[in-house]
Order: sequence, then C-alpha cells, then structure tokens
Amino acid sequence: MTVIANRNEGQRPALHFTPKIGFMNDPNGLVYSKGVWHLYYQLNDRNLVAGHPEWGHATSTDLLTWKWHEKAIKAPSDHESIFSGCCVVDCNNTSGEFDESTGSDDRIVAIYTLHTQGHQTQDIAFSSDGGYIFTPYKHNPVLDIGWADFRDPKVLWHALSNQWVMVVAKCHQFKVGFYGSPDLVHWHHLSDFEGAGVRGYQYEMPNLVEVPFDDDNQRKKWVLFLSIGPGAPLGGSFTQYYVGEFDGTNFTSDDNYLRTADLGKDWYAAQTWFNSPDGKAYGIGWASNWQYCNRVPAERYRSAMSLPRKFTVREVPLNANTKSLSLISRPIDLSIARLPSNDAAMVYTNGSAKISPSIDVIYQRHMQGSTGAFEFKLNIKSVTSPARVTVDIANPSGRSVQLNFVVDDQGMFISMDRGRIRTGSSWDHPLFDDKVCMWVPSTQTVYDVHVIIDVYVCELFAIDGAYAFTNTFFLQDGVASTLTVSQEVTDTEVFDVYELCPLASA
Amino acid sequence: MTVIANRNEGQRPALHFTPKIGFMNDPNGLVYSKGVWHLYYQLNDRNLVAGHPEWGHATSTDLLTWKWHEKAIKAPSDHESIFSGCCVVDCNNTSGEFDESTGSDDRIVAIYTLHTQGHQTQDIAFSSDGGYIFTPYKHNPVLDIGWADFRDPKVLWHALSNQWVMVVAKCHQFKVGFYGSPDLVHWHHLSDFEGAGVRGYQYEMPNLVEVPFDDDNQRKKWVLFLSIGPGAPLGGSFTQYYVGEFDGTNFTSDDNYLRTADLGKDWYAAQTWFNSPDGKAYGIGWASNWQYCNRVPAERYRSAMSLPRKFTVREVPLNANTKSLSLISRPIDLSIARLPSNDAAMVYTNGSAKISPSIDVIYQRHMQGSTGAFEFKLNIKSVTSPARVTVDIANPSGRSVQLNFVVDDQGMFISMDRGRIRTGSSWDHPLFDDKVCMWVPSTQTVYDVHVIIDVYVCELFAIDGAYAFTNTFFLQDGVASTLTVSQEVTDTEVFDVYELCPLASA
Repeated sequence: MTVIANRNEGQRPALHFTPKIGFMNDPNGLVYSKGVWHLYYQLNDRNLVAGHPEWGHATSTDLLTWKWHEKAIKAPSDHESIFSGCCVVDCNNTSGEFDESTGSDDRIVAIYTLHTQGHQTQDIAFSSDGGYIFTPYKHNPVLDIGWADFRDPKVLWHALSNQWVMVVAKCHQFKVGFYGSPDLVHWHHLSDFEGAGVRGYQYEMPNLVEVPFDDDNQRKKWVLFLSIGPGAPLGGSFTQYYVGEFDGTNFTSDDNYLRTADLGKDWYAAQTWFNSPDGKAYGIGWASNWQYCNRVPAERYRSAMSLPRKFTVREVPLNANTKSLSLISRPIDLSIARLPSNDAAMVYTNGSAKISPSIDVIYQRHMQGSTGAFEFKLNIKSVTSPARVTVDIANPSGRSVQLNFVVDDQGMFISMDRGRIRTGSSWDHPLFDDKVCMWVPSTQTVYDVHVIIDVYVCELFAIDGAYAFTNTFFLQDGVASTLTVSQEVTDTEVFDVYELCPLASA
Repeated sequence: MTVIANRNEGQRPALHFTPKIGFMNDPNGLVYSKGVWHLYYQLNDRNLVAGHPEWGHATSTDLLTWKWHEKAIKAPSDHESIFSGCCVVDCNNTSGEFDESTGSDDRIVAIYTLHTQGHQTQDIAFSSDGGYIFTPYKHNPVLDIGWADFRDPKVLWHALSNQWVMVVAKCHQFKVGFYGSPDLVHWHHLSDFEGAGVRGYQYEMPNLVEVPFDDDNQRKKWVLFLSIGPGAPLGGSFTQYYVGEFDGTNFTSDDNYLRTADLGKDWYAAQTWFNSPDGKAYGIGWASNWQYCNRVPAERYRSAMSLPRKFTVREVPLNANTKSLSLISRPIDLSIARLPSNDAAMVYTNGSAKISPSIDVIYQRHMQGSTGAFEFKLNIKSVTSPARVTVDIANPSGRSVQLNFVVDDQGMFISMDRGRIRTGSSWDHPLFDDKVCMWVPSTQTVYDVHVIIDVYVCELFAIDGAYAFTNTFFLQDGVASTLTVSQEVTDTEVFDVYELCPLASA
C-alpha cells in the first residue's frame, strides 16, 4: 500500500475544480450572489490527507472557470475544526446582524459545524462583503444538542412557512434533523426524518432542495440528498436521495426505495447552490471516496470536485410496467471549453478496422492537445444476446483504462476496471482497484451515453441524465490522449467528440 | 465471450448439491417429512442453459449427502414450463384430495407457477407417496389473475389465522401478493406488500418464514425473503429480506432499510424448508447469478446450490449508537465431512516466513486429498490504520484466487478478485470478472471469519453469521489444494482448518 507520486500528478483537470494546495473534501456553503457562484470546501491546507478542516473558497461566473481565494472561515484553534455547512443570503437581514449600509446581496451567512473532540455544534458566521470575509457570531453555537456526531447543516428559506429550515445529520442515529428559525440564530426542532434504503455506518451531508420536473419547470418536487459512508453498495461512501414532499415541518418520502444519486464510487457529499439565478437546482459532488481519498496519487493538492450539475426529476421506466420518479443529472454545458474540431459533427458507425473477426474498431482519435480532457457521446443499440462495446482511453505511454458496455436482454451493464490499470503502476490501493459497475434496464431500443474525461475524473451520464456514474482513475506516465471505440455484435454510434481545454481565469 | 470447458469441470463440489445433468436454477418445494429433506429445483435437463424448466428432485437425511431422483413434476407440453414453487405437507387433508389410507406425512402438495408465453398461473399437484410422484390437480389453475409475470408461490400454514398463506411475486409491479386459503385450492387475496430497498428490474421468489431469535428460540420474527434481478448492488441478481410482523393478513416491515441476505454475487432465490423437524428455519440459495449463469464453465451439468443454512435473527451493531435486527446465517455443521487432521486444533498466529519486510506468511497447508474442499476460520484484529490479510487459494497448476481483508478505522472490507484469476484462463465473461466486495463495520475488536471452499463455491460468514458472502470462482487446471494466509501489519489467528470430503450417499 505504498503511495508514490505519478509523473502526471502535476497536471490538474482542465474543468474540474481542484484546490490550490492541501486536501479537499466536501463542498460547502454553495451560494450564488451578485453574478458569482461561490464554492467553499473542506480544506486541510497543512497536509495532503484529511484532518483539521477549514473552509477553502473559490468563485466562478460560469461554473467552469474557478478563482481561488483566501480561506473564508478559519478554525479558532488547533483543537477545533470548521466542518461542513452551507451559506444563505440573508437579504432581508432576518438575523439583525447586518448594517443597513450593507447591500442586501452582500449579506451572506454561513451555517456550519464546529467540531471538537466528542462534541459537534452548529455555529454561524457573517460576511458583509458578499462571502469573502466571515466573522463568527459572538453567541455561537446556535444549535447544540450535546452530541458527538451531529453535523453538516444545510439551510434554505421556506417561503410557504416563512422560516429558515435547516437539515442536519444525526449521523449515528440514521436520522436527518429538521429545524426551523426566523432569524438563523434561534432554532427549534421541527421533525426527524428516518431514512430508507442503505444505512451503512453513518449519515452525513443532508441537502434539501426543490427540483423542477424535466418537462415542466413550474412543477417541482422536494429532493433530499443524503451522504452515507461506509456502506455504499460498491464500497465506501456514496450519495443517496429521496423524492417527496416538505410542508414546512415534515419531509415525507414518496416511497421507501433506495435511490442512488450517482452510481459510481466517486461522487460524495452532494450539495446544491442557494439562490441560483434562474431558481433551478444546481449542485456539485466531491469526486472521491473515503475508502481511498487519503491515498490516491497527489503532489501539491489532493482530490477534485465533480463538474457542476443541473438537476431535474423525471419518470424513468424500470420495466415495461413501472416507472420511478428519478433525479436527472446533467453536467453543466461544456461548449465554451470545446476546441474546434473537424469531426465533431460526424457520426461514426462503420467499422474501420477489424481487431478480430468479430470486433470492429469504429472510432479512433488522437487528441491534438495534451489537456487530457475530452467528451464524447455513444448511442448503443439494444440487443438481446450479449454484445460488447469497449471504449479505450489511453495515454502516450500506452497505459489505458477501459469503459465496458455489455448489452443483453437484461439491459446494459457499464463498468470501468480500475484493477487492470494498475499493471506496471507505482500506485496501489486494495480498495481502489475494483471494477466499478452499474446497470441500465432494457427499457429502450437505444442506450444514449455521454462521457466526460478530465485527466483523472470520468463522469458518465446515460439515458438523458437518468443514470450518472462518476469514477476517478489514475494513469501512470501521462494523461489520456487517444480515444478508441470498438464493438462486438452490436451497432454503436460515436458522435459529439470534443477536446476540452481549461478556460482563462476570469 | 467464448466459453471453453476447463479441465476440472468434471469434479463436482464435495458437499454442495449439484444436479445429475442439465441446467439448474432456483430451489423449489423445500419440505421435510418422515426424516427426509426434499430439495426440488428448476431443471432444464435438455441443455446446459436456462429454458423449459421442470422440477428436479433430490433428498437427504443430513442436508449434506444428496440422492438424485426422477423428475418430480414434468411439463405437460413443450410450450408449458413448471416454474418455481413450494411444497407443503397437507397432513390434515385440508385439500380433501388424499385418500384416508395415505399416511398424513405422505400427503405432499406442490404449489408452483405454470408458465406459458405471456401468462403465468399458480397450479398445484398432489403426491401420495411423500413427495416422489406428483399428479397435477384436475381443476388447475388455482390462482390466475391473467398476468404475464406473477409467479413463485411459497405457502405456509398460519396457525393463528387457521389458514394456508401464499406469498407470490407481482414481479414487474414490485409487490408481493399475499393470498389465503382453507384448502390450498381456493385462494383469496389478503394484501399486497410494497417493498423497500432495491427494486431493480423485477421481484421474484418471495419466501415468508418465522425465524427464532439467536439467543431465545421461543421469540420469533417474521422474515420475508425477496429475490431481485437485475439490479443487485454488485450487479445481476441478489436476495433482499425484510424483518417484521405478519398478522394473517398483512406483512409489516419493522423499517424500510435495505437488508441483503448474502452480500456476494452468487446466492439467489433463497427458500426455506417447510415443516423442519425442530421448528427452526433452514434454507438454501442458488449459488449463481443471472448475469452469467448460462456461461460459466460446465460439462454435464451447470450450477450448484449453496450449503443449507440455519437462520436466526439478532441485533447487530451498525455503529456505537445503533443496532439492527438482522438475519443471522450459519452453514449446516460440516463436522461429519471433515477429514481428521493433526493441526485442526492448532492456532497459528506467528509468522513462519517473510515474503517481504512487512508481510508475514502465517499459515500454509497443502491438502492431502484432492477434493478441492476445505474450511478454515480467521480472527482478524481490528486496527485503525490500514492493514491487510490475504488468503491465497491455489491449485497444483499455480492458478489461485485470493480473499483480501483490508482493515482500517472504517471497518473491514472483504473482497475476492475474480478478474485476476482470468489470467491464462480459457474462460472469460465480462460480467463475471469483477472484484466482489463487502464491508463489516468496525464495531468489534476482533473480526471472526469462517470460510468454506468447495471446488468452485466460496461461502464466507463473518461476525458469527451476521454477514454472509457467497461467490463462485473457476480455477483452470485443477481444484484448489493449497491454503496460504499472509498478513501485513495486523494480528490474525488461523484455526479450525479442515479438509472436507464427499460423504457416501445414504
């Protein structure tokens, strides 16, 4: 289990946010104000492993280009940590803590967990400059039930009941606490939500948000995200969600089924932005897993966020008889980051080379740049007897990772074998080297797939966002530069292939 | 995806039931009567892949030695199949179909699904000779709601409400139908149970049974097993269960959490025996997965059952604050199948060889026989920084499979990497070659593990039956004969190592 840096560790993802230095985990305090998307995050800037987190800070105007800022909230002492939390815009000065001269959009309040050994409380801090400098409230904590594991507050304004509502994890009791407040300072208990689906070891990072229907922005459902770990179906940590109703006091899930927000191993602690400009639901996840986040290859910093996603809900068929109202995840539009390409508009379906009597190479492209970032789409035809499509993502040293798509009468099984890429690697972790896999039921004649590769992050979306699958991979000796798609006994289209490049910082 | 037979395919598991010829899937009709355990099973004796099932039949007096019999229920025509179902002893002749001269213990009734294209009905058949020869009821079907996917009836006698109760899958509606009958012939609808946890593509093989508490045989809970596939967390098919109450009309689950009866990839369609002699809960699962069951190496027959298991329920800690009333699975006692061994009573804890400065080989044994079957136990000490224990199971050709145990502050992650054993193999399946993994929370100072290897079946039980993990593996060129346990940075005990051998048929 020795960790030695890979040669390509210096290269950051082109479009996925990474911290300047140190170890990053959960996204925190997501808030939009005055044309700026704020992304705070758990940051240990003393080391490359988790420990003593404070709030790092970055901003963006397009959700693709990020600017690093000074730490926004610092721990008051070495034995205290600033754990995860959220931000709101207190435009009406409900807290009474803002000067009237402070612009309403500049009144940012952070609500977060102050962690000390054996005790976690909910504290708040105020920023009068739109989210850059925070001052802790002088009468902290604002919520303390005397527990060791009670954390990760997420607050929204619930107009119908005219109050602030906080969801916060009662971690080891497997409950989400709901609290109400008129002023962000005085909180009273509303209810506890007892989940369904996976429990695992503990609950973390709840996030309640109203999400529009895919085909009707006026209709909305409440979605409660909940992060759980260890205990993920594929191992380690993952993000579950519930779809239901919230009446200002109780959250009621429509049913008790397990719903997984992202079926990969590297999408945790998902949070959504407060106050998005169009009122829609935008969120982000941490692209790692507590099984191995402290040990993946790293030099100056460790771990990335996922791309921001836009969320909706839609009825997704599970079989011929039953549909499920499901979270739809679509990555932020990448078109401004695309390099112009002659063949982007082409659709490749015919075999251009045979690598065995039954296997066709239908697409191959050597990238012009060395960003290690590109996206592509596939339409894979549904068949009843087993067929396979393989996407090989290789670097100039010949190291590669494969995405495998196996289609049969049971549906499509998608996998990335991270064990295979270890061969010859200087890096090894027994909890990382698995073949991550997911499944899409056979409810359509063509499976649509959208894949984004960005240095060491692979995000995959299938069936128009009904299934998301985010996994990291670490190629030795250089970032990926060649994309090869081959197929066996099926008809696949390859299209919308674009190289991606970092954008100039705003 | 070519399948070529391995050289060792001729060798059957020593103690796991396999059919004489043909393709086997679900266990059916489990019933105990007159000192005999009956095991019927879905059998296609025309081919080595699924299709046109009828009921195969075997019996045992010890649940380890099985005797094959003639097919018990045959399909009346080529376009009809005898799908899964159950048997009961109609000792009081509630059906009125038995002659008074038939001994009460000989009155066996099979309740099963008759499958035709687009239509599934529940039919019954009578045996007056204790379960060997069945005659279909002349007025079949006994339950028909006109559906295409309505199958797998399991019937029990519910004394409190003085009726037969059937659970049957409304497969694509994700419901378990409950029906009541005074006579096994006339059935009326009692309720539908809507599950929690995973839905996947469809529900199959429900099984309702009263299960005693681990420490108090007089206290019991109702357990509803439910098989689901595809859609298993690890891919393909798996068995979920609910713990709750049944009042003669409704089953009420105690909560809505996902509970998995076996965390491996090869334990499906679990059923329990009707009328067990001590009134306790004994069951068995099919040791395969619909992802690849038609394609694993095979010559005269394909697939095995798990070992029979004894079930109880016990509060199992999930973390320091919360326990979960969980199914406890223990394999049937294997002591009569053990070869005498000089070192069985020994406990190995000291390194006998260093394979690297930090890795100790603590145990190695070359089996005397060539049964490919052995069992062993491990006690692995809980540690907070990552440690690893590796169990290597090798054949004389040097092919091997490893069980890996990674222990850290998050608990113990157990895996079997089936991808690695492909190297050099003539057999390959993209849905088989994954690294199957499970997790045990860090709620104890020592993790106890019991492993049974039997040619191509590996059954693992941890924390005194709280976690079960069944997976098949296929070594090329010979069955396993060498067991090697090595460890890195932890203290492990190896004990109760026994070779196992087939027993003479009764």
